Amino acid sequence: MARVVVDVMPKPEILDPQGQAVANALPRLGFDGITAVRQGKHFELEVADDVDDATLAKIAENFLANPVIEDWTVRRVEA
Amino acid sequence: MARVVVDVMPKPEILDPQGQAVANALPRLGFDGITAVRQGKHFELEVADDVDDATLAKIAENFLANPVIEDWTVRRVEA
Repeated sequence: MARVVVDVMPKPEILDPQGQAVANALPRLGFDGITAVRQGKHFELEVADDVDDATLAKIAENFLANPVIEDWTVRRVEA
Repeated sequence: MARVVVDVMPKPEILDPQGQAVANALPRLGFDGITAVRQGKHFELEVADDVDDATLAKIAENFLANPVIEDWTVRRVEA
């Protein structure tokens, strides 16, 4: 059993109102020095050992991310 | 300028209907061997060099996560 992490982020040219809202709020709340915030999704998958990287790439591209507006990374982590 | 990543996940005892929906859909779509999926949030912050780890911990705990129902990790990555 392996653990796989998929991080999905809006592409740089896509507006990110959630991240923007956090970035705008922090100085108002007394935290300076945070110049940008972007918010995406973080998936943790428990995967059987016989699932290969190509399958994981397909799952991430087709079902976890929207390739039109999002970038994503897939990485295996120690369980 | 440093880059900081904050990952926020629902605590293990908290139901995660989004992750559950993905986990249930994958076998139907022909992908077997994914035994669990949990979905959380992934934040990427651009941070000035003089922002220390204690400040980052406070930002994550107070504004990015809900400590009642979520766990979170803060890590610096190379820019």
